[in-house]
Amino acid sequence: MACQDRNIPSLLTVVLVSVRNPLNIGAAARAMANFGVTDLRLVDPYDAAFREAVSAVGGAHVLRTARVFATVAEAVADCSLVAGTTAAQHRVPQQPVERLENGMSQIRAHQGRVAILFGSEKFGLSNDDMSFCHTLLHIPTAPETPSMNLGQAVAVCLYEFIRDNTEPARSPFEPVSGADAEQITLKLLEVLKESGYTNRITAVSTDQKVRRWIRRLRIGRHDAPLLLGILRQILWKFGKRPGRDDA
Amino acid sequence: MACQDRNIPSLLTVVLVSVRNPLNIGAAARAMANFGVTDLRLVDPYDAAFREAVSAVGGAHVLRTARVFATVAEAVADCSLVAGTTAAQHRVPQQPVERLENGMSQIRAHQGRVAILFGSEKFGLSNDDMSFCHTLLHIPTAPETPSMNLGQAVAVCLYEFIRDNTEPARSPFEPVSGADAEQITLKLLEVLKESGYTNRITAVSTDQKVRRWIRRLRIGRHDAPLLLGILRQILWKFGKRPGRDDA
Repeated sequence: MACQDRNIPSLLTVVLVSVRNPLNIGAAARAMANFGVTDLRLVDPYDAAFREAVSAVGGAHVLRTARVFATVAEAVADCSLVAGTTAAQHRVPQQPVERLENGMSQIRAHQGRVAILFGSEKFGLSNDDMSFCHTLLHIPTAPETPSMNLGQAVAVCLYEFIRDNTEPARSPFEPVSGADAEQITLKLLEVLKESGYTNRITAVSTDQKVRRWIRRLRIGRHDAPLLLGILRQILWKFGKRPGRDDA
Repeated sequence: MACQDRNIPSLLTVVLVSVRNPLNIGAAARAMANFGVTDLRLVDPYDAAFREAVSAVGGAHVLRTARVFATVAEAVADCSLVAGTTAAQHRVPQQPVERLENGMSQIRAHQGRVAILFGSEKFGLSNDDMSFCHTLLHIPTAPETPSMNLGQAVAVCLYEFIRDNTEPARSPFEPVSGADAEQITLKLLEVLKESGYTNRITAVSTDQKVRRWIRRLRIGRHDAPLLLGILRQILWKFGKRPGRDDA
């Protein structure tokens, strides 16, 4: 009923990153089926036999159509909003962390495909995974026991997603796709390297830092060609021939 | 945070009725620990070895203090409000069925101990079990796959219970000042001019376009030095001496 009246769940994607236990993949698929969400993607699943996940009573159709990707970048390429999930207790993230209900109301209002990322059972999402996220979601758990079971976390997030049945506010903002955001990131990193800027800050963290930063800015779909044009022009001025991706 | 500021979870009891699988008991205990709820009661657990439930990472303290009762009547004897959970698809209950968020707001407002009952994996709560309930809660799942995994259903119910926390969400985002936004605008316009980009688009409108665009992006206060540093580095690479505003 709740899920059926709207076609919004069809624009929601669940991405499980480096999940180790097929039972958890099955549990995630079942929760998705419960809340009418069907697009499951797996990045680097440890156990290739994930389709055998046995606890997916009722989640079989979700598992059957699940797709496997080698990297987060590929998994979210067609998503214009990427949200990570975090227990947010251990580290101080360089990104805004929203309470689940607040973050989810943004997600509901979003025009375009949204990915919600869940990390491995043991470590959650890495800093590198998080650098692909526009926002981080935090389920307000008890500080003594902050870390949720994966299947339960997926269930809670999707419940929050479908909970508020009211029609979302329309925003005229059309965000850039994941693929374009990544192209902008790579081109900017090239500019930073060629200009000599990169050496001035800790080189190791630059990639993640720039990637996070590009996602944090609200770059619109129509901004992508503009930004890429500017970056290419700067590289041209640096005297660098355009690379093969500029064809 | 959410669970700690209030003592309401201490008046909430989770009752699992005729649950068959110790893993599910463990999963329920873990969800309870996640949301700061500690009072677990089991009615007629099939497997008396429930304390060995292995998936209760972080739920051990909940399991240790769990109590076993022979009947629902005994399990809810000290509870002044009893709520059952149901997928509410198969039967027409003789009791009001509330969507989870509505029923839970009643529960939160209740003065006294509240029990939430969950039935067996296979059959849910029996009509007899339900007859002990003042109200029935329904998680708004998809009609094709209404029945949730027990541990996930417990997690969703308890999340809804603690969800409405008056504590406002803190957003760490501090936007850039108007002065810094303008400095970034001017420096970017300089880069566009020096790179030869400006001639490629209508010159008259470029200033406004870039100015609007910089405001539209969500640039944070701490992004300003970073952005200005990048733009200055690009100008330096172009072979241009820094202007007087760079002093």
